[in-house]
Amino acid sequence: MEGTGEVEGAMSKKALKKQQKEAEKAAKKAMYKKQEGKENEGEGEDNGKDVSEGFYGVMPLIQSKERLDRRVLALKELTPDLADKKVWVRARLQTSRSKGKQCFFVLRQQKWTVQAIVSVGETVSKQMIKFVAGVNKESIIDVEGYVRTVPKKIESCTQQDVELHAEQVWIVSSASPRLPLLVEDASRPEGTDDSLATVSQDTRLDNRVIDLRTTTNQAIFRLEAGVCKLFREILDDQGFVEIHTPKIISGASEGGANVFEVTYFKTKAYLAQSPQLYKQMCISADFEKVYTIGGVFRAEDSNTHRHLTEFVGADIEMCFNYHYHEVIDVLDQLFVYIFKGLRDRYSEEITTVGRQYPAEPFKFLEPSLRLEYKEGVAMLREAGVEMGDDEDLSTPNEKLLGRLVRAKYDTDFFILDKFPLAVRPFYTMPDPFDKKWSNSYDFFMRGEEIMSGAQRIHDPEFLAERATHHKIDLKSIESYIDAFKYGAPPHAGGGIGLERVTMLYLGLNNIRKSSLFPRDPKRITP
Amino acid sequence: MEGTGEVEGAMSKKALKKQQKEAEKAAKKAMYKKQEGKENEGEGEDNGKDVSEGFYGVMPLIQSKERLDRRVLALKELTPDLADKKVWVRARLQTSRSKGKQCFFVLRQQKWTVQAIVSVGETVSKQMIKFVAGVNKESIIDVEGYVRTVPKKIESCTQQDVELHAEQVWIVSSASPRLPLLVEDASRPEGTDDSLATVSQDTRLDNRVIDLRTTTNQAIFRLEAGVCKLFREILDDQGFVEIHTPKIISGASEGGANVFEVTYFKTKAYLAQSPQLYKQMCISADFEKVYTIGGVFRAEDSNTHRHLTEFVGADIEMCFNYHYHEVIDVLDQLFVYIFKGLRDRYSEEITTVGRQYPAEPFKFLEPSLRLEYKEGVAMLREAGVEMGDDEDLSTPNEKLLGRLVRAKYDTDFFILDKFPLAVRPFYTMPDPFDKKWSNSYDFFMRGEEIMSGAQRIHDPEFLAERATHHKIDLKSIESYIDAFKYGAPPHAGGGIGLERVTMLYLGLNNIRKSSLFPRDPKRITP
Repeated sequence: MEGTGEVEGAMSKKALKKQQKEAEKAAKKAMYKKQEGKENEGEGEDNGKDVSEGFYGVMPLIQSKERLDRRVLALKELTPDLADKKVWVRARLQTSRSKGKQCFFVLRQQKWTVQAIVSVGETVSKQMIKFVAGVNKESIIDVEGYVRTVPKKIESCTQQDVELHAEQVWIVSSASPRLPLLVEDASRPEGTDDSLATVSQDTRLDNRVIDLRTTTNQAIFRLEAGVCKLFREILDDQGFVEIHTPKIISGASEGGANVFEVTYFKTKAYLAQSPQLYKQMCISADFEKVYTIGGVFRAEDSNTHRHLTEFVGADIEMCFNYHYHEVIDVLDQLFVYIFKGLRDRYSEEITTVGRQYPAEPFKFLEPSLRLEYKEGVAMLREAGVEMGDDEDLSTPNEKLLGRLVRAKYDTDFFILDKFPLAVRPFYTMPDPFDKKWSNSYDFFMRGEEIMSGAQRIHDPEFLAERATHHKIDLKSIESYIDAFKYGAPPHAGGGIGLERVTMLYLGLNNIRKSSLFPRDPKRITP
Repeated sequence: MEGTGEVEGAMSKKALKKQQKEAEKAAKKAMYKKQEGKENEGEGEDNGKDVSEGFYGVMPLIQSKERLDRRVLALKELTPDLADKKVWVRARLQTSRSKGKQCFFVLRQQKWTVQAIVSVGETVSKQMIKFVAGVNKESIIDVEGYVRTVPKKIESCTQQDVELHAEQVWIVSSASPRLPLLVEDASRPEGTDDSLATVSQDTRLDNRVIDLRTTTNQAIFRLEAGVCKLFREILDDQGFVEIHTPKIISGASEGGANVFEVTYFKTKAYLAQSPQLYKQMCISADFEKVYTIGGVFRAEDSNTHRHLTEFVGADIEMCFNYHYHEVIDVLDQLFVYIFKGLRDRYSEEITTVGRQYPAEPFKFLEPSLRLEYKEGVAMLREAGVEMGDDEDLSTPNEKLLGRLVRAKYDTDFFILDKFPLAVRPFYTMPDPFDKKWSNSYDFFMRGEEIMSGAQRIHDPEFLAERATHHKIDLKSIESYIDAFKYGAPPHAGGGIGLERVTMLYLGLNNIRKSSLFPRDPKRITP
């Protein structure tokens, strides 16, 4: 028995090409037969009898002709329990290599892989071997065969204790022979071995359909779905109501810069930069606690590792009785719940991603560490940074603070409370004792801000006063102010960028790795 | 003891106005004091001693000065169990009426209401009564008082067995004295009594912050959140992965008509009309089963009861082995699960909505009724409709078919399978036996289509052939076709409009009733 380590890369490129060409021919021949309405009847050479006739070929297009009750097993089900049982599977052909009278190939299905083998014998002809060896990589194939245990673990597959001895092989959907990237190449850790191919980010994103097939990407986006699931789970439990806010808005919210303009019939509209106004309106409308997950749009020409022009915002807003720390408590529990949930329920995904993109496990405390802004500034100063009391944190200083906090408190997550009023938006509630500060906070993961929030001003007159102070034209934010004219409870909230949370939790180096189809100033395809 | 039936409407408009004016004065006076940094110290007339001093007034702006550990009860907690206990609540003032030495008022909190009373006595002055009577409706107030059981049920409140004897009353957030609509008026069934005010749809939507406070709206949007929750619950259980697809796309999907154009830096982009291409790419990328809930945009100038330009799409896509009916089975179970879940977990909301908008309870079968298109056409013909075999269903015919099905099968929900190929999009898989038909289906609720779906063509060559047949420029859908070039399993899916499902489940007559902030050709505010 051979491991796939040997199967991969052992053939010369020339031989591979030749083999592929022949297989293409065979596949084409089969395709023509299919189009004539006949099923493939084997590839008998010289019109001699092919003992494998009817056991391989290109399957006619699955067009829902009949509903077979055949059981199709998942690759993950192939374990020694099924030893010597005949099974039918459908999976992608990851690699193949023929060697004399045998052909080894690896089947892949999401994150599972199994080695298969087809050998010349009573029902397997040479022609069949040739056919199998020539199937294009990434094609979806059906294989029927016997599960056999192996004496030595197959290290390169997830199903290490068994292999599949194929008796039937059918192409369900053929991949183009020329692939823009190979899943193996896309699965390699970055910069480990210069002799092996890696895939540039643009090539990946241009061909996302193939790139997303790597076990790493399968894991990243399952974990990202987990973030949403956990987010909703705890908030539903606490009586939050899920809302859906409009993305098309009439005025540019929050000042007007960096919004995308939309042609709306005979007028102009804009894409919402955040659901904030609508969340707050729901608070004014007595929903008390709301959350929403949806698209958020920023027309910012930032080409960095952490900016997208469209991302998924997970936002919450809630009323409180006396102090916005009631809300920070809820947010704190929310994050701890997400971090624990990921750690406990997605450990396999975390491990998988770590194999390609190694990172320190994400550390957090319960309850989370809370520092005041001035404490953060003091730590930075102690480390040699020169900055004013109420100066905003630069990105490098955020990062540095993250490292200092990690060194001192052993956590990758913390809350920085009481930001200087001057660096926050006009609707931020000032500190009741000192107008230099405000009732606002940022949350950090691995030294990067992932959530910004505050107590909002719920008094329309005070709100107008603060807007005027910020030199904002009151006319332009009239509907925002009006939302609080009919009685509004004190409230606070915040929003996270889903892709940032996923990126930073996993310690990825680029937000494009945690966005399914990323959008940035230079990319709106695919 | 008095019911609020009597409290409401008993005062003349003139008297009410006068009272309100006085209260405004009092509130203003208090506000000035607040701004001078003093708390309200009572409204002593003639500088005489006010025994209620310190027990009423306008509370200083809640700015998170201190974190009181006072327990603030929810109105729903006010039951006879708490009889003679002193409690503190925060709620909206719904109505008030003073009568001699007493003032009755009704507090509202989401869908709960309780009657309160304040009477002149040892600690309650005449001035306090006057203050309370003058608080603007819809203001948020704090009330401390004793819970008292009542001998006769208070029919007009949800808390029918108790009332609150107030000892302290504080304005937390004052509503403007002039309300554009009254919650009571907005809560009235349509067209029942011409002598009572009702609120037009536009007035409601223009002042959505107040309109959403009705118990009906509170219930509608809780139930709508429930639809999403149930949708995700069953799909998560079945191994679906939640994905997030981009809304900004480079090309106009699905033909190009009816898309909104976006100015994207120096180029043009469009808003996605559906997540379909991206769902299908995820199938090509081996996610096997995916769903997504998010904004969907249609630049259609349709001003009907059931069209929105932006709505929430809940979409699924999954691969299958041999027959797209494997997918219909999943969709069938999905809907039955949602309908049962709503019926069992949201019965209170359904009842609440029914009080204002009466409707027959929604009927469904398990498993759902499935008819072929030609069976539907036969039923329509039997009922006198003249139409061709493969003619599309008009909206009136859809409605009629819904009624016929309801009469014959006693269900408001059914699946219509095998639509004529000619009326479906180019990517629809033709029927394998007769090209006149296709492997596609619509789902109906109360005679309106709520989901359209099909087996998609997963073979790129065949897809191109069908597109050409539809006279679609292949260049314009290149990326769509390319998504299937690297091996794609057979798959099918569909998408629902969340607002439509909510509307039709509840039997509402307009989709604007189930959209939080609706968008149509004439409305993009608030």
